[in-house]
Amino acid sequence: METLSVSASHGGTQGVYAHQSAATGTRMTFSVFVPPQAKAGPVPVVWYLSGLTCTHANVTEKGEYRRLCAELGLMFVAPDTSPRGEGVADDPAGSWDFGLGAGFYVDATEAPYAANYRMWSYITDELPALIAAEFPADMSRQSITGHSMGGHGALTIALSFPDRFRAVSAFAPIVAPAQVPWGHKALGGYLGPDTAAWRKHDAVALIEDGARVADILVDQGEADGFLAEQLKPHLLADACAKAGIGLTLRMQPGYDHSYYFISSFMDDHLRWHAERLA
Amino acid sequence: METLSVSASHGGTQGVYAHQSAATGTRMTFSVFVPPQAKAGPVPVVWYLSGLTCTHANVTEKGEYRRLCAELGLMFVAPDTSPRGEGVADDPAGSWDFGLGAGFYVDATEAPYAANYRMWSYITDELPALIAAEFPADMSRQSITGHSMGGHGALTIALSFPDRFRAVSAFAPIVAPAQVPWGHKALGGYLGPDTAAWRKHDAVALIEDGARVADILVDQGEADGFLAEQLKPHLLADACAKAGIGLTLRMQPGYDHSYYFISSFMDDHLRWHAERLA
Repeated sequence: METLSVSASHGGTQGVYAHQSAATGTRMTFSVFVPPQAKAGPVPVVWYLSGLTCTHANVTEKGEYRRLCAELGLMFVAPDTSPRGEGVADDPAGSWDFGLGAGFYVDATEAPYAANYRMWSYITDELPALIAAEFPADMSRQSITGHSMGGHGALTIALSFPDRFRAVSAFAPIVAPAQVPWGHKALGGYLGPDTAAWRKHDAVALIEDGARVADILVDQGEADGFLAEQLKPHLLADACAKAGIGLTLRMQPGYDHSYYFISSFMDDHLRWHAERLA
Repeated sequence: METLSVSASHGGTQGVYAHQSAATGTRMTFSVFVPPQAKAGPVPVVWYLSGLTCTHANVTEKGEYRRLCAELGLMFVAPDTSPRGEGVADDPAGSWDFGLGAGFYVDATEAPYAANYRMWSYITDELPALIAAEFPADMSRQSITGHSMGGHGALTIALSFPDRFRAVSAFAPIVAPAQVPWGHKALGGYLGPDTAAWRKHDAVALIEDGARVADILVDQGEADGFLAEQLKPHLLADACAKAGIGLTLRMQPGYDHSYYFISSFMDDHLRWHAERLA
């Protein structure tokens, strides 16, 4: 692991790191905020998965999480959203919702993406091992959140590893990729046309198929331009109601899809996580 | 005035705006956060002047000021740091510490900069009139802060308009440009070789020449790579001590010159301002 930068921040340290990933076959960059409490021993870990077009940098710069992570004693880990670099296949059409910056947190099975687009393995296996080895992390206390495509990642990963994550939340998540255009394109492109293979990467389908978590916090802006066509939080509400999952879905009047929205509610999400990580 | 973007944030609105400036002869961009209290009537205004290379965007994205401005009822205005656009003279050497992004909050008198580099008039005259006309601002309650070159701007403007600003603070300010390389280059380039003309744009010289404010808050990172050569806060401390100005100078161990430093102490500065704007 290589340290790209470390700055003191809110009493802790905000670092950016890179390493050669075996999962993706590429150099991967991520950021970690270590709160001051880590000087006294390992601290719980909040994972934040970012949305389409983002790298680790968006939430690191605009997420406004450090003040409260420092107060609550939470480590905050922000990975990249796809493999990158020379030789990594991108969408031939150059779109922003598939390929680079749009890994959708799956292990691709379709050529040419299967070679590098293995974000599921990277996020659920390789990077946690690196965090455990290199940082003062209490890996028995982890939680996960994310935005948009990263909310999809957080929900599907939490539902797939209910014993690992003590809390899950999301900002404006894609809740049912199999039912929306972004998901059709991504899951079709990475996993192929057999929609049976998509179900373990669709939060609503996972719940329908029996996956469970205790509760979920979701914030969704009502002025979000992607709400009606791509996000459809009512599908998650319906699935949770049928499954007995305690969903707190907060529709936020006037808020859009940007980091101005995310940062406005970051404190509430961190408190939700801290209560469940205590 | 043209609205470039407005987003709901922390219960208020974060906007980015542009207008044709008579002072600079260019199109100028700035950001304004309007807190929720403005729905009930005009609110006090905190001016934030940015440092070298910055636009309005740096603090708007990374400053972490909105949460507390929304709580305390403060408007937060972030202007650009220089004129920009076709025909605006830049440093022929292309450096980052003179010309574009480095206006130093002076009205240039030297060719070719005198044509557009009139940031003093822009910040102290033209933009306040626009803010008063277009936003729910209580212009009888203003304060000012800034970072690095913007700290220099905040200090010199507050010392020059003691009846306008009820509070002044700075993050890692240039306190005595006439005594450091950045200042020699900028004041020499914009104002010419007669150093007598520099004194009204040098906080330490202004205080030596009799300018007064009640008190000043300054935070300075001890790991700031510009501290020893360019910033020299002890010069401000000496001048304030002799003048009877109440300087609170906090040296912050481990902190660098970045927005990770600024955002860590933004809350303290906003509270300092709010107490004096009440």
